[in-house]
Amino acid sequence: MAKTNPGRFFEDYSIGQVIEHAVPRTVSGGERALYHALYPARHALYSSDEFARACGLPASPLDDLAAFHVVFGKTVPDVSLNAVANLGYAEGRWLKPVYAGDTLRSSSEVIGLKQNSNGKTGVVYVRTTGTNQNGETVMEYCRWVMVRKKDLDAPAPETVMPELKSVLAPEDLVIPEGLDFSAYDFTLAGEPHRWGDYEPGETIDHVDGVTIEEAEHMMATRLWQNTAKVHFDATFRPDGQRLIYGGHVISMARALSFNGLANAQMIVGLNGGAHANPCFSGDTVKAWTEVLDKADTPAPGVGAIRLRLVATKGGEPFALRGEDGKYLPEVLLDLDYWALMPQ
Amino acid sequence: MAKTNPGRFFEDYSIGQVIEHAVPRTVSGGERALYHALYPARHALYSSDEFARACGLPASPLDDLAAFHVVFGKTVPDVSLNAVANLGYAEGRWLKPVYAGDTLRSSSEVIGLKQNSNGKTGVVYVRTTGTNQNGETVMEYCRWVMVRKKDLDAPAPETVMPELKSVLAPEDLVIPEGLDFSAYDFTLAGEPHRWGDYEPGETIDHVDGVTIEEAEHMMATRLWQNTAKVHFDATFRPDGQRLIYGGHVISMARALSFNGLANAQMIVGLNGGAHANPCFSGDTVKAWTEVLDKADTPAPGVGAIRLRLVATKGGEPFALRGEDGKYLPEVLLDLDYWALMPQ
Amino acid sequence: MAKTNPGRFFEDYSIGQVIEHAVPRTVSGGERALYHALYPARHALYSSDEFARACGLPASPLDDLAAFHVVFGKTVPDVSLNAVANLGYAEGRWLKPVYAGDTLRSSSEVIGLKQNSNGKTGVVYVRTTGTNQNGETVMEYCRWVMVRKKDLDAPAPETVMPELKSVLAPEDLVIPEGLDFSAYDFTLAGEPHRWGDYEPGETIDHVDGVTIEEAEHMMATRLWQNTAKVHFDATFRPDGQRLIYGGHVISMARALSFNGLANAQMIVGLNGGAHANPCFSGDTVKAWTEVLDKADTPAPGVGAIRLRLVATKGGEPFALRGEDGKYLPEVLLDLDYWALMPQ
Repeated sequence: MAKTNPGRFFEDYSIGQVIEHAVPRTVSGGERALYHALYPARHALYSSDEFARACGLPASPLDDLAAFHVVFGKTVPDVSLNAVANLGYAEGRWLKPVYAGDTLRSSSEVIGLKQNSNGKTGVVYVRTTGTNQNGETVMEYCRWVMVRKKDLDAPAPETVMPELKSVLAPEDLVIPEGLDFSAYDFTLAGEPHRWGDYEPGETIDHVDGVTIEEAEHMMATRLWQNTAKVHFDATFRPDGQRLIYGGHVISMARALSFNGLANAQMIVGLNGGAHANPCFSGDTVKAWTEVLDKADTPAPGVGAIRLRLVATKGGEPFALRGEDGKYLPEVLLDLDYWALMPQ
Repeated sequence: MAKTNPGRFFEDYSIGQVIEHAVPRTVSGGERALYHALYPARHALYSSDEFARACGLPASPLDDLAAFHVVFGKTVPDVSLNAVANLGYAEGRWLKPVYAGDTLRSSSEVIGLKQNSNGKTGVVYVRTTGTNQNGETVMEYCRWVMVRKKDLDAPAPETVMPELKSVLAPEDLVIPEGLDFSAYDFTLAGEPHRWGDYEPGETIDHVDGVTIEEAEHMMATRLWQNTAKVHFDATFRPDGQRLIYGGHVISMARALSFNGLANAQMIVGLNGGAHANPCFSGDTVKAWTEVLDKADTPAPGVGAIRLRLVATKGGEPFALRGEDGKYLPEVLLDLDYWALMPQ
Repeated sequence: MAKTNPGRFFEDYSIGQVIEHAVPRTVSGGERALYHALYPARHALYSSDEFARACGLPASPLDDLAAFHVVFGKTVPDVSLNAVANLGYAEGRWLKPVYAGDTLRSSSEVIGLKQNSNGKTGVVYVRTTGTNQNGETVMEYCRWVMVRKKDLDAPAPETVMPELKSVLAPEDLVIPEGLDFSAYDFTLAGEPHRWGDYEPGETIDHVDGVTIEEAEHMMATRLWQNTAKVHFDATFRPDGQRLIYGGHVISMARALSFNGLANAQMIVGLNGGAHANPCFSGDTVKAWTEVLDKADTPAPGVGAIRLRLVATKGGEPFALRGEDGKYLPEVLLDLDYWALMPQ
């Protein structure tokens, strides 16, 4: 028997199955510094312990997306090694900030299964949970992927489609304990625009762009211990290109969104996301945002804002879909998330 | 109103104006490790806590140039986003070493203004101060940049030219508290040459070279949270090239200068500097040094040495200017600084 | 006299000579994070403090190969700056894990000398020792390199060939104090295969591949403060290629071997190794392993396994030598080491 991991195929999943993912990870100032080297991340809460303390936190946390990548990376060998496509995300919630010294692990429960009509693939829905060394859940999210069958004769499972919220309600969001923006320093944060200054429907072109390099996306993807061959091995695809981990584009776009959303400090909810087109080395990533919604929160001075973050590799800002309803070819990412801002 | 930062234009500056720069930064072992991964930095005081303690410091500090980059990076969105050229530096002084756990911020005072005769640009002089979490100044320097006017009809300000020292006097230099080179370990430091072995006029070819990669200069520049588009976006310049942050060349040249100046441990003064020609990915950076001056210091066993550090991308060592008095095309950097050495 | 380091030539070595290598190094979470960004390293003991504690260690150590690279890097300016070839390794032993906060230094003793019959080069054998801040030896290994003579008229030294073990005996291996695999968590480690599941003669194709980038191998090599020009300066070789540090290939292959050897956690012995062919940017590195031997150890639940790790840049797995007995052109590395696994 081969000792290497063949990954799971569609027929290997069953409803209610819980998969404990391997390779727990302790994070340190090293992960934080690398995150700032790999992305133009400038949100002050994640850059300065002093700024974070002035907002009621014990220290500057690891970037919320870095926490997501660590949790996500562990699922790859078990969930998406034989995936044909990463189809979507829902009900992502950040429940507790991650600090230097924390050790993260993750597990996934299979919550949905649907074999495709071609009999060759199926869709697997999982709810993934990231846990720290104290057993506290730091984040959770649902993801569904299309996975190949290995044994085409394996019987189709009963179709189970999970009920997933298309958007998290404001009351679903968890505000980190102690968070207080009532003495927020807008000067140190980098922009004067507060929660009250943004209106649903408003769009923001984040202006800046970053041209992607192979070494950078591979370093990032490895740091999250994501093992998908397609990101690292130029001989894997017939075209000789390494496909860039979708999370690299998410982090790049979010970091670029600082310019215009410097005060959208913490990500607390992920409503949905689509990797509209693949990204390759040499592409220049830009980003724009549409404000979708706003909500008050019980925390002092803290408002929630729902944002659509779009990453592109060219084209005009604010263009998303063609007349056929499909994403334009230059659109890389369409992400829908909730962030916390000072009111 | 657009919420993104348009940067300041020449008419937005006034004498005495103080700009508090955004995004404070806590540094850790992560920044230190990345500095050593990005540059061939080998000065023992910045590599080993044990070596630093034997020299009277509490631990190994963050490289002096890394501290400079952190302080400098914060000024970019406020000072040089619309700059046409970075013209010069003066009166740079390192006043207190930066250690893992320190949080740095920076502010700049406008100390000089001069509109150019074309009416389209002007020169802005600032004195920038980097401060730690205890309010202590860790470094300061003056910089002047040529900035575009946005409103060409804006009246020219009264010309104010700051009086800047062309060279810091030895008594201007601040020796870190406790620094003591009387039991300095030359073997562990890597070279036997002490302060007394160097003479003004002496030149040193540092021999080694590094070929520059896009991923590396972008990671470095992002780590310092420097946001100038020209370093990251290959679509920004008509020639499709990313201009390398001048500070990347400074750090590369200084690290290369270890070979011949391993004992020029701490940088305490920056007398001046010119980015003579642009640097691009693929260039192979080499460096040479000319000893300009020497001075005693009150600290035990510590001498000060004034060095001209020149970075090139080819050509012969020790060639600096052509017959026309202009920098040779292969010269990238001409830096004049004071360092501390064991006597 | 030039102040730069010319390196030692063959005639500069003598039997019994002890060279204290320069530039001690304190490691932190930064080095650990970079190791995980540069290599697809996933062994749980080196990723999670919690996992390491459950195995009886105080925290997650720095990867054993990172410790090796730090110790090795310091020797380059003294041992291999004028080397023509790195010929071999033997009797490598890891004696004590390295933790964040440790400061490493290294020294080498010349244990063998043999001038080649051409009179232009000779082979130098050294035993290198890495030491931490408490004076404890963390690792040691023998290496022999072919070094140029500078003065061809220098008399040949008496030939001394050290007696080196071709393979370390199991009783030569040092098990880290406290190591206990009796409660080992195979799920968190990533694979169910225990020591008893591997048999001598068994071969494992590690399946995954990584295409090498210039920025990555240079960052790794600089992080270990290895100064050999050939790795960094594209103008140094006539073909304009930067030769990749052999240790980069070792770390890459070892990390790839996780897939099939996730439980071969700790490296404790290096029996030998050959850099069979040079590696350049653009090569896609893959790896396979042959199980060579097994041995019990006195530590609870801990078995030792001897492995041949082969890195290739193409070709079929398990092919090593041609009919002429020489390494096949696609073979990069042939490494023979002892690791510790749960029984």
